[in-house]
Amino acid sequence: MNLPTLYLIPVTLGDSPIDQVLPPYNTRIISDLQYFIVENKRSARRFLKKCNPEIDINALTFYELNKHTLKEEISTFLTPLHSGQSIGVISEAGCPAIADPGADVVALAQNEGYKVVPLVGPSSILMSLMASGFNGQSFAFQGYLPIDGTERVKKLKQLENKVYQEDQTQIFIETPYRNDSLAEDILTHCKGQTKLCIAMNISCENEYIVTKRIKAWKQNLPKMHKQPCVFLLYKG
Amino acid sequence: MNLPTLYLIPVTLGDSPIDQVLPPYNTRIISDLQYFIVENKRSARRFLKKCNPEIDINALTFYELNKHTLKEEISTFLTPLHSGQSIGVISEAGCPAIADPGADVVALAQNEGYKVVPLVGPSSILMSLMASGFNGQSFAFQGYLPIDGTERVKKLKQLENKVYQEDQTQIFIETPYRNDSLAEDILTHCKGQTKLCIAMNISCENEYIVTKRIKAWKQNLPKMHKQPCVFLLYKG
Repeated sequence: MNLPTLYLIPVTLGDSPIDQVLPPYNTRIISDLQYFIVENKRSARRFLKKCNPEIDINALTFYELNKHTLKEEISTFLTPLHSGQSIGVISEAGCPAIADPGADVVALAQNEGYKVVPLVGPSSILMSLMASGFNGQSFAFQGYLPIDGTERVKKLKQLENKVYQEDQTQIFIETPYRNDSLAEDILTHCKGQTKLCIAMNISCENEYIVTKRIKAWKQNLPKMHKQPCVFLLYKG
Repeated sequence: MNLPTLYLIPVTLGDSPIDQVLPPYNTRIISDLQYFIVENKRSARRFLKKCNPEIDINALTFYELNKHTLKEEISTFLTPLHSGQSIGVISEAGCPAIADPGADVVALAQNEGYKVVPLVGPSSILMSLMASGFNGQSFAFQGYLPIDGTERVKKLKQLENKVYQEDQTQIFIETPYRNDSLAEDILTHCKGQTKLCIAMNISCENEYIVTKRIKAWKQNLPKMHKQPCVFLLYKG
């Protein structure tokens, strides 16, 4: 008998086709599962249907895990494991437990000694790093930068220092409607020789991943408003 | 006409089947390419044959990029792009340009303004982070730790401090025959309450990804000798 397992199931980024970014194995795993912990029920259902149109969505059980979920509720999501049933974790975009609430439920499963199996899929963080040409032997993902202007500039300068002092690629993101303002801050406050990679709409039709020195980006920024972006800094 | 493109092509980790870890799209891209920059010719040929047995390997051109390659040689590898031909980059295991020499050739292509496209595939760093249950909103990959004993212990303590002070997951690797000795150093020098995830043989049949507190790992370590491992630290 197979051990009850928590499968971490990546989804497409944007509307790229399933077979462009997900291995066929993932659909086989998905098709055998009855229980799912998802960030958003509607988009999870749509994703499952896209993977396998034969799936009977109404026969499945969904637990919703997002910023509104209470801590105490999360532990009950693992009940199927206790009775020998496997569970799939699906986030809104990309890989679950990376920059989303999925990590809490994984920590719980690890704590209870259950088997956790990550499946392969698109990660905008990793793919942007691959294509940036920056140091892939040492890198840090910093999540979102502070919203407050002064704090944000301080953080940016801190990250630029790490680039030079620790030879470490710095990766961060922003809420898509604030991309332009973050980019302006980078151009204003980082050194002209420092390199910035802008990685936008990764794995989608209009994918754009371009690395330039900060001084070359000035007056030259692409339109980023409301587009999912990853920003990477490295020494020039 | 399609723009000449540098495709970053991930390969399997160990001997997992192609369709378990790579999207079908990757094989379509591979089958259209004539030029490859590879870490090792023999294993790249074997991988291409496994993806598509119809490929005429003898009709392809391979450039070898590894620690023996001279800096001046690397720029000549991009010659096909100048005449409008796309190139694929293939490393020994996992995703090119992450913890391997591929990043140099990507930096060159970015510098010359060519299109760079990362494909999806298995990354032991990202997959171990997903399954660890650790913080995926802030994490750093540190590559290999120093070999020298005193330096290594110093670095380990530094990383453990970052875990607590910056709330950042710390990820690192070791040459597989030194795994046991690194694990012993972690158990000896890190706090009992700190959590360690050992992620071994990712995406392979004998995959093992387990998170415990350091004190719970004592007298309890798995056999890691010569197995590819990723180590992750996070606060308990």
